[in-house]
Amino acid sequence: MKVVGNSLGKSIHDLARELFPICRSITGDGVRETLQIIRRELPQLRLEEVPSGSQCFDWIVPPEWNIRDAYVIDPDGNKIIDFKKSNLHVVSYSTPVDAIVPLSVLQEHLHSLPELPNAIPYLTSYYENNWGFCVSHIHRQALKEGDYRVLIDSTLEPGHLTYGELIIPGDSEEEVLFSTYVCHPSLANNELSGPTVSTFLAKKIQEWSTRRYTYRFVFLPETIGSIVYLAQNLDHLRERVVAGFNVTCVGDDGTYSYLPSRDGNTLADAVALHVLKHIAPDFRRYSFLDRGSDERQYCSPGVDLPVVSVMRTKYGEYTQYHTSDDNLDFVTPSGLEGGYRALLRCIECLEQNYRLEGLVLCEPQLGRRGLYPPLGGSRESPNNSLTMMLDVLAYCDGKQSLLSLAEKIGRPVWELIETIDTLEQHELLRVIRADAHRQLDRN
Amino acid sequence: MKVVGNSLGKSIHDLARELFPICRSITGDGVRETLQIIRRELPQLRLEEVPSGSQCFDWIVPPEWNIRDAYVIDPDGNKIIDFKKSNLHVVSYSTPVDAIVPLSVLQEHLHSLPELPNAIPYLTSYYENNWGFCVSHIHRQALKEGDYRVLIDSTLEPGHLTYGELIIPGDSEEEVLFSTYVCHPSLANNELSGPTVSTFLAKKIQEWSTRRYTYRFVFLPETIGSIVYLAQNLDHLRERVVAGFNVTCVGDDGTYSYLPSRDGNTLADAVALHVLKHIAPDFRRYSFLDRGSDERQYCSPGVDLPVVSVMRTKYGEYTQYHTSDDNLDFVTPSGLEGGYRALLRCIECLEQNYRLEGLVLCEPQLGRRGLYPPLGGSRESPNNSLTMMLDVLAYCDGKQSLLSLAEKIGRPVWELIETIDTLEQHELLRVIRADAHRQLDRN
Amino acid sequence: MKVVGNSLGKSIHDLARELFPICRSITGDGVRETLQIIRRELPQLRLEEVPSGSQCFDWIVPPEWNIRDAYVIDPDGNKIIDFKKSNLHVVSYSTPVDAIVPLSVLQEHLHSLPELPNAIPYLTSYYENNWGFCVSHIHRQALKEGDYRVLIDSTLEPGHLTYGELIIPGDSEEEVLFSTYVCHPSLANNELSGPTVSTFLAKKIQEWSTRRYTYRFVFLPETIGSIVYLAQNLDHLRERVVAGFNVTCVGDDGTYSYLPSRDGNTLADAVALHVLKHIAPDFRRYSFLDRGSDERQYCSPGVDLPVVSVMRTKYGEYTQYHTSDDNLDFVTPSGLEGGYRALLRCIECLEQNYRLEGLVLCEPQLGRRGLYPPLGGSRESPNNSLTMMLDVLAYCDGKQSLLSLAEKIGRPVWELIETIDTLEQHELLRVIRADAHRQLDRN
Repeated sequence: MKVVGNSLGKSIHDLARELFPICRSITGDGVRETLQIIRRELPQLRLEEVPSGSQCFDWIVPPEWNIRDAYVIDPDGNKIIDFKKSNLHVVSYSTPVDAIVPLSVLQEHLHSLPELPNAIPYLTSYYENNWGFCVSHIHRQALKEGDYRVLIDSTLEPGHLTYGELIIPGDSEEEVLFSTYVCHPSLANNELSGPTVSTFLAKKIQEWSTRRYTYRFVFLPETIGSIVYLAQNLDHLRERVVAGFNVTCVGDDGTYSYLPSRDGNTLADAVALHVLKHIAPDFRRYSFLDRGSDERQYCSPGVDLPVVSVMRTKYGEYTQYHTSDDNLDFVTPSGLEGGYRALLRCIECLEQNYRLEGLVLCEPQLGRRGLYPPLGGSRESPNNSLTMMLDVLAYCDGKQSLLSLAEKIGRPVWELIETIDTLEQHELLRVIRADAHRQLDRN
Repeated sequence: MKVVGNSLGKSIHDLARELFPICRSITGDGVRETLQIIRRELPQLRLEEVPSGSQCFDWIVPPEWNIRDAYVIDPDGNKIIDFKKSNLHVVSYSTPVDAIVPLSVLQEHLHSLPELPNAIPYLTSYYENNWGFCVSHIHRQALKEGDYRVLIDSTLEPGHLTYGELIIPGDSEEEVLFSTYVCHPSLANNELSGPTVSTFLAKKIQEWSTRRYTYRFVFLPETIGSIVYLAQNLDHLRERVVAGFNVTCVGDDGTYSYLPSRDGNTLADAVALHVLKHIAPDFRRYSFLDRGSDERQYCSPGVDLPVVSVMRTKYGEYTQYHTSDDNLDFVTPSGLEGGYRALLRCIECLEQNYRLEGLVLCEPQLGRRGLYPPLGGSRESPNNSLTMMLDVLAYCDGKQSLLSLAEKIGRPVWELIETIDTLEQHELLRVIRADAHRQLDRN
Repeated sequence: MKVVGNSLGKSIHDLARELFPICRSITGDGVRETLQIIRRELPQLRLEEVPSGSQCFDWIVPPEWNIRDAYVIDPDGNKIIDFKKSNLHVVSYSTPVDAIVPLSVLQEHLHSLPELPNAIPYLTSYYENNWGFCVSHIHRQALKEGDYRVLIDSTLEPGHLTYGELIIPGDSEEEVLFSTYVCHPSLANNELSGPTVSTFLAKKIQEWSTRRYTYRFVFLPETIGSIVYLAQNLDHLRERVVAGFNVTCVGDDGTYSYLPSRDGNTLADAVALHVLKHIAPDFRRYSFLDRGSDERQYCSPGVDLPVVSVMRTKYGEYTQYHTSDDNLDFVTPSGLEGGYRALLRCIECLEQNYRLEGLVLCEPQLGRRGLYPPLGGSRESPNNSLTMMLDVLAYCDGKQSLLSLAEKIGRPVWELIETIDTLEQHELLRVIRADAHRQLDRN
């Protein structure tokens, strides 16, 4: 029996469980239904409909795909493949079909995984008219010669691509972007972990009475969705976004992973590395060459947004990836809560990343403020919290941000906040609440 | 039996031996007596008196502390603790006391080290009124119940903080700073090694007929002394000092140590690393996070002097630290001489750190100057001194300093001087005797 | 039996075989004869004669040396050393002599290698009047007492230093320099590999219908030749040369070697490292401190040309170096062809090193161009050529050159050309055919 995480992880997992059966694709009613459920949690979520045929950079929004039913009936009259049992059985964007075909023809439209004989694979055919069924390999191997009834009751018609956008205003017009996707059918880590964790992050941020940054959450279909969104918002995003996170694969119990922005030197990169170094020293560090999700768009030349991925086990790196085994057993309450907490730490680091300036020259006399032990000369090193205080004072030069200071003194940002508050109260230090810089290497 | 170093180490050790019995603290006659003895060696040493109550940045100069006697007499009338036998027995800055107290009360004022049962610890209470005795743990454990006579014949009265300053003028107004401290009572490595080695360095520099830099030696109490000194001299020091050394723990026979300036990229850092790399490849490299001496003030934000520490075994890193075991057996003539020679190498590197410019294009024809072997085509590499000459010529581009050149060709600065002189005599190279730059990373 | 390389390596080896017997030195008819044979292959090669006594920077062109015959006859009348059998027997630039001397005097003029008793060493005495014979140590040890007839029929008279220069014009006035030397007598790797490989590189470049760069090949005596050449052409070379290669020791079958320019950060360095990393991951990387050939002049301060060496086994690093064992068995067709191909790869990289700019924002829709597989969601990574295409698109930001892009995506430049052509044809990418920059670290 799996140990269930605390109530937060359980809540995220419950939301994933509710969304799991819906048949999502890059367009269609499954996406709308998913976004409506998320809007129940985040009432200010705004849904946008982009017509089929819209040109977005090099792409054209495809026809909308909807599906009511699909099945295969074997020569004995048994319904051996049934969309109602798993929406993974149908290749996403399958054209409608209603025919009787011999096994040899059916085989041309079947997909299975010999290396994972019990799993149903997940496949799509968004931009080429085709139809197909995905089955377990064991299932497939049991098929016998004869005529099969195949039915896919789908439509591919002019419609819309649907996405959701939530803006949570902050003190600054500078923005932190969270992007996640809603195009996968019954798959859990890739991808219900992203939208569910993002939903709970947005709920949390909305609870705060003040926020430094404006937060932008987008729930969209992968690739075409982020391209559509960028085509509509590029100038705004390029001007405002100081850090962004592509939220995917944040729900299993594997170690954490980091995939950088293209140049790897943005504020988002610095924050992600800082957080993961402290919460999961064994985290896996990928290269941008390992990219495979919407950072492909956000970090493309000319777009150049500071977007990174902070994940649990990266897409493509776990056996269950893109199969029916990527389910709600693989994704756990503790896994989801871990993904949530890692990203929340990133947000905390961004919110606190002000420059710090000491207000006295040389070390202050902490003793007369009760911040230093009265007896001197001890052979022991100062205790941990005094060391932290002395280190903050030694580095708060008015130039470097808290993140940079924290890196230099080898402490996580969140452990320093209390010390900084104390020093601020004693008027030994000033927090310079100016805007952060997007690029660490900017002048 | 310890092997005694040569006569120089012996002379430094003799000076330490003379200073050892004096009861020094951050103020008081012990400091004055110490500085008078140093002035005997360095007649131009100027003594400065700063009144109690003076505000220096965040600090106030404390009352002056003097002590004539202190002891504890046990119930049997035996003087069991006696300041005259070791001035470590009294907590520095103890308030006067003359009382008969039961053992239980005495115990509240006793300090010992269970982990080092034979050693007397060194403790201070500069900024909180208190009194106490330090004893060996063995000694303490032998105390029996009964009434004890305790006497501390001390005064804490308005007076002065005393420090010494010696300026040795050079061709340039740019300065090299040596700071060391005179506030420790009978302790040898931390700290008589610093003032005694500094005294001999100053004597040596004074012997030279010319000096590139002006040298500033200060002998002051740790922390409050350097803060007072900075408060009085900050603008001058910030304008003039190109490199500085906090001289402490330079007297034992342990390996060498380096503690950087805050940013670690000053000329002083480059010089210290260059010297230690060549004279002690196994030297220990600390972080500024390991700081614990006056670099805390000299390198604080807004002060930002290029000050490093070149030490033998760093304070806090040896068992004897801040106990009666840090004595003149732990500090040796050879240890002191090693500390002296390491710092003298640093000075040599600074004095020689000019830019070098070749005076002919391409390699010069060394053969017709008798600097190259007549027979060509040899399968052997050129000998060491010819290789050095060719390497100096290959890198003397008029832009980089000798230190940078020496780093590139992997040689210590001091091994290159003779070669440079030869090349200068043959008019193949010009030494650009302009001012050095304080920050290596300055334009 | 050695395996002979393909016909190209064989052709280079044949040319080396033809040139091998000629007695070359830094001046004289052997140099002219060598250059005439190279001119047969490269009819546009221009021969330049620089008079003895010409001042070139710190050097003076020496008298011209020619030799007709030389031998030693032993007391029994046997000709035991004979220049006609090996021109290595005579120290290069030996003054004429015709005398009968006892063995003791002869010994003062004999040179041998006890550690390689069968090899004849190679020695020179360019700038000091002297004469000598080089013999195998075994040979020398067999000499018996008695009078020896020694004859060196040489002349040292005002004449010329001769070098060859070939300019192959390209679209740009910017130049790529190849420098190699023709001063070694019967030695194969150091140095007939350099002139023969350079000859075939020049032939190859001449075959191309267009060239981006102008190519400059110089065949000159080592040291004095490059100094003379720089004295005559320095301003031109400093203005035009974007990358240069000192071609030496490119004919044996050992691993590849790289010797950097002085600062190691020029375009030539980047290209050489890129090529060797991909064609010979185990290549040896030397320091400029290991220099020993004409990069000593080309990279000297104030000359500062971007010249590197891409070699097989570096001079001085193989047993046969500067002896009669450095012969046409040690240098092989496959070795020469390898040296040729490595340098040709460098040229390809330079010719192709344009900046690349993507022409659509976000990833282009490769699918509708038939460049992407129709079925999505595969658990497999994209195949190698698709990955390459996606990586090129992800990095072609209009700022970085192909070389930089290739380094980032971990591919050799030459593997990317086809992909870039495809993307250019599909109007997804633009090759910015502007001039390259000489210094990688230029703004």
